[in-house]
Amino acid sequence: MSDLTRNAVEALPEGMLAKQLQGDRPLRVKLGIDPTTADIHLGHTVVLEKLAEFQRDGHTVVLIIGDFTARVGDPSGRSSARPLPSAEEIEANAATYQEQAFKVLDRERTEVRFNSEWLRMEPEALLGLLAQTTVARLLERDDFQKRMGANQPIAALELLYPLLQGYDSVAVEADVELGGTDQKFNLLFGRDIQGAYGQKPQSILTMPILVGTDGVQKMSKSLGNYVGVTDAPEEMFGRLMSIPDEAMAEYYRLLFGSEQPGSPPNEAKRELARRLVDRFHGEGAGAAAEESFNRVFVDRGAPEEMPELDLGPYMDDGGSQVHLPRLLADGFEISASEGRRLIGQGGVKLDGEPVAATALDLDAGELSGRVLQAGKRRFLRLVGGPA
Amino acid sequence: MSDLTRNAVEALPEGMLAKQLQGDRPLRVKLGIDPTTADIHLGHTVVLEKLAEFQRDGHTVVLIIGDFTARVGDPSGRSSARPLPSAEEIEANAATYQEQAFKVLDRERTEVRFNSEWLRMEPEALLGLLAQTTVARLLERDDFQKRMGANQPIAALELLYPLLQGYDSVAVEADVELGGTDQKFNLLFGRDIQGAYGQKPQSILTMPILVGTDGVQKMSKSLGNYVGVTDAPEEMFGRLMSIPDEAMAEYYRLLFGSEQPGSPPNEAKRELARRLVDRFHGEGAGAAAEESFNRVFVDRGAPEEMPELDLGPYMDDGGSQVHLPRLLADGFEISASEGRRLIGQGGVKLDGEPVAATALDLDAGELSGRVLQAGKRRFLRLVGGPA
Repeated sequence: MSDLTRNAVEALPEGMLAKQLQGDRPLRVKLGIDPTTADIHLGHTVVLEKLAEFQRDGHTVVLIIGDFTARVGDPSGRSSARPLPSAEEIEANAATYQEQAFKVLDRERTEVRFNSEWLRMEPEALLGLLAQTTVARLLERDDFQKRMGANQPIAALELLYPLLQGYDSVAVEADVELGGTDQKFNLLFGRDIQGAYGQKPQSILTMPILVGTDGVQKMSKSLGNYVGVTDAPEEMFGRLMSIPDEAMAEYYRLLFGSEQPGSPPNEAKRELARRLVDRFHGEGAGAAAEESFNRVFVDRGAPEEMPELDLGPYMDDGGSQVHLPRLLADGFEISASEGRRLIGQGGVKLDGEPVAATALDLDAGELSGRVLQAGKRRFLRLVGGPA
Repeated sequence: MSDLTRNAVEALPEGMLAKQLQGDRPLRVKLGIDPTTADIHLGHTVVLEKLAEFQRDGHTVVLIIGDFTARVGDPSGRSSARPLPSAEEIEANAATYQEQAFKVLDRERTEVRFNSEWLRMEPEALLGLLAQTTVARLLERDDFQKRMGANQPIAALELLYPLLQGYDSVAVEADVELGGTDQKFNLLFGRDIQGAYGQKPQSILTMPILVGTDGVQKMSKSLGNYVGVTDAPEEMFGRLMSIPDEAMAEYYRLLFGSEQPGSPPNEAKRELARRLVDRFHGEGAGAAAEESFNRVFVDRGAPEEMPELDLGPYMDDGGSQVHLPRLLADGFEISASEGRRLIGQGGVKLDGEPVAATALDLDAGELSGRVLQAGKRRFLRLVGGPA
């Protein structure tokens, strides 16, 4: 048996999880993820890895895809009400989330549930749920206190969130719920709601929040400092090589549960990147990505750190073609005609290979993760592109 | 055309109603009543009379029976969350409310709607409604501010109330909404919700709150100081005769829209009682009730004011029989055996007539509204009884 509280920030109530683990029955261990963005990123996998540990000890993971709660919006850690994703986005994301989660979780020991199954309840049942708590209790959470203090609005809808996600615990009869430290209020609230519905309240386990590739803020799609679990091997490798040395130890600790090796930082970072690419793309994918990285950065004199350019805004309506002169103009702050001239002279390269003079419109899927070079000393890493 | 703002406390926004009344189209004038108690009382009729005035000018009244909102609970004027009526109580009350309202309203110009028709909405629609406002806006209302100041709990469910009743205005496309002054927040909130749903916001008209028969607190079923519109003529007459002289002018003003007559207070009060009994029981019923009142109170030496005893707790399980010795024991604080002795001696009277020595169990329906007398000087008015 592994020490399931290793790396965790808090396990509450104190001693409860240890007692639960002494029982004979496999525990039902809940994780809720709202499909608000297209991809699961490495930050999510900190909790997923911990769930995989529970599975290796014989417990059942209940993965809740919050297709209903995504329409309400989790206020956790928000300084303002966020724009909600559309129903179509939620549906599309929900469909891919479970496949992404299975890059870490054991399919056989995972129960996947969509919370619209029980949250699309009769209005009377929803009123019954609302009757279980007071406004004061709902406003206790730190993020709301901060917003009230700053006179920033809290949407009435946001109040509903902890009630709904707490009811998820009732619906799946969770014994344990996991989440990031920013979920502590929600997880504890789940205990209240389970108690109100006559269930034994779950224990909760909070995990640290992984810092993004900038080494400063939490990893988040909207901050652009994330590594998605479906990112192409080269893009994933390159992004991981861009994290500051100081953040490396935390990546090792939270993603591998081990210490950073004693090797020089650049070596340790390459090992980290190789192992993570292997994890999400299969054994050997890391080494291949590293070779490609070397071709560009080491053999061709490209720096290991460079600005990134998101392909998203450059894709035409059809969604796949990118007009290279426009990319050059914006990315390197040159005129479109200078861009065309450079292409014609063989001065524009992709991963070190000159772009053909006739290739003005390129496939965005082919560009993503590659390094765009203009002249000898200007480099950009192309990221994003088609979902 | 009558002056529709006569007696009103506020008509908001200023000047809007006057402008609406200049149009050609009959206005849709909304009143919402939650069927939380069995009967409509005179307090409710202040607003109903005003609606009847709108009808006489050709407008349409939309009477909303809040069978759904009754399950949420209107926080207006409450110092704490109240216990909610059961589904069965609501259903029973809803069935009788409209008949009671037609004692004042013109059936031909009234559209009766139950708000479960639109409030039993899909959860997505309910979320959409909740997204229309902020927590701060919902907590602005005076009653909540007072409760927060006193650290008294506000149920999360109570927050929902103004949103739901505001949506009623959207559903029926109200031009004007009426209510007591305690409804001002809710009525104004209806304007917000109409605006959010792309409708022209209604104007609102608030009416004064009628004081109860105690002359002090607002008329309310739960305070026991009310006159129900379905009360028996004798009970209605007797209860109205018990209001303090000082409250009479307000009753005249709010229920008849006229000044208190210059006659001596006792005469003016009798006229008030006669006219109201006539209103709810038909022409002549007032004079008959007064005669019965005289037989008891004037001819037999009973006082015009006396304590009331609620028959409710004395009805047996079947619901209709009352055991007279128990009533005497509790009502006059004598022993049951003394009660039986008094009955045997002909010393117990109902409306001045001695009760037969063998009549120990009496029908509660027959007792309600009558005066129970023990010996020469002890009197009680019996109230309540079967619904």
